[in-house]
Amino acid sequence: MNIKLIISYLGTRYHGFQVQNNAIAVCSVIQDAIEKIYGERLPLVGCSRTDAGVHAKGYVANYHTTKYIKPWQIPVALNRFLPGDVRVITAEEMPEDFHARYHAVAKRYIYRICNGRVQDPFCSRYIAHYPEPLNSDAMKRAAVDYIGKKDFRSFCGKSPEGIPADTVRTIYDSKVWVEGDVIYFSVVADGFLYKMVRILTGTLIEVGAGRLSPDCIPELLEKKDRGHRGTTARAKGLTLDTVYYDNIPDSF
Amino acid sequence: MNIKLIISYLGTRYHGFQVQNNAIAVCSVIQDAIEKIYGERLPLVGCSRTDAGVHAKGYVANYHTTKYIKPWQIPVALNRFLPGDVRVITAEEMPEDFHARYHAVAKRYIYRICNGRVQDPFCSRYIAHYPEPLNSDAMKRAAVDYIGKKDFRSFCGKSPEGIPADTVRTIYDSKVWVEGDVIYFSVVADGFLYKMVRILTGTLIEVGAGRLSPDCIPELLEKKDRGHRGTTARAKGLTLDTVYYDNIPDSF
Repeated sequence: MNIKLIISYLGTRYHGFQVQNNAIAVCSVIQDAIEKIYGERLPLVGCSRTDAGVHAKGYVANYHTTKYIKPWQIPVALNRFLPGDVRVITAEEMPEDFHARYHAVAKRYIYRICNGRVQDPFCSRYIAHYPEPLNSDAMKRAAVDYIGKKDFRSFCGKSPEGIPADTVRTIYDSKVWVEGDVIYFSVVADGFLYKMVRILTGTLIEVGAGRLSPDCIPELLEKKDRGHRGTTARAKGLTLDTVYYDNIPDSF
Repeated sequence: MNIKLIISYLGTRYHGFQVQNNAIAVCSVIQDAIEKIYGERLPLVGCSRTDAGVHAKGYVANYHTTKYIKPWQIPVALNRFLPGDVRVITAEEMPEDFHARYHAVAKRYIYRICNGRVQDPFCSRYIAHYPEPLNSDAMKRAAVDYIGKKDFRSFCGKSPEGIPADTVRTIYDSKVWVEGDVIYFSVVADGFLYKMVRILTGTLIEVGAGRLSPDCIPELLEKKDRGHRGTTARAKGLTLDTVYYDNIPDSF
């Protein structure tokens, strides 16, 4: 059987999803739980790495097993062995060739910014705090310019493996909205470069603070160089929201 | 000057508001911060004790000082020295005789119950999880019967000091509503007995689970005895939401 899991986790305590040397990864704690219920350690394929401290609402992973457990029982059984900050939401049996990473056609990330003077302690683990007044209308205008098939080299962080040869990605949707004192930035793309979402967000924050013009995005894209002023927003405000398979939705 | 603070905190790490022997209390961490900015340790009057693990959105406390700091600067200064799970929202200068506890005329508590099979890890610190299916309509019906000036002896927990002589309290508002898979119970009263909100909630949970009738409340009140089946709901779902001074609002 090929089992697809949808997982929600608060990344605060973790060094991302993927197992890294010595740091606790979300992947390991799920593999530990899988081992408890299946009696053997199974390889777990995750849909993406996610940086240390980044959260997920709808992370997707899959594993193969020869032992049959009814899909509805899998979340109940796994959650019994998982820490409270990692929850398996659903489990589903998939065709044998389903692959959580290779078959993903798009992902949505949401970045949450508390723009109030004082942050609500009830959500301070997954909302970043930027108390400097931000002009959300300017951010809304700028965010739209990310949409399209473009070379995002200017928005690619330096990873240990360097900048990839192909830095062209397609952003299907990019928008900013406000609820209370929280500014939301949602972005859907076929793929993201290293730290790309946090650099897209950091650039919008610079726009909101008035240090960059709301019309700066096309120019920054044109530079094809990371040497611009947009900073990298902190990991804790970022959540992998949804992973899309098969078809790209018509609207987001 | 007499300064009134409105404080929000996640009670998870704390042994309530009031200083207790050896346990960390919210009161102490605020007094530590006050000492940092005023250069002296000042007595802090809290509006109520709150049990270990209970949270607050609008906790009220006050202290007297002879040193003048502009009220709008006080939250900024205190928050610099407070841990992230305790935030001072506002500070206001009050008449000299204002007393956070004695002058409170009513308090609103909100209890949050996740009634889904799997709990969202993003809010698992302040929402209790009861996966057993609960009939929220039955809970709504029962909650209304708490309203009024009544003897709540049947809903009073055993405190180290025993049951008080006067167990009559006035509940101004009591209601249940649902948002997504979360059931909310909000209750406003002129005062609450030891563990009273958690016993009121526990009884509603028994009603929701079908083990008590939605019409059981008048009968339970009549018993004037804690020996009934309603359990004490867990502390982590409970938040002190609002403290009212001067006048009781006409509607809630």
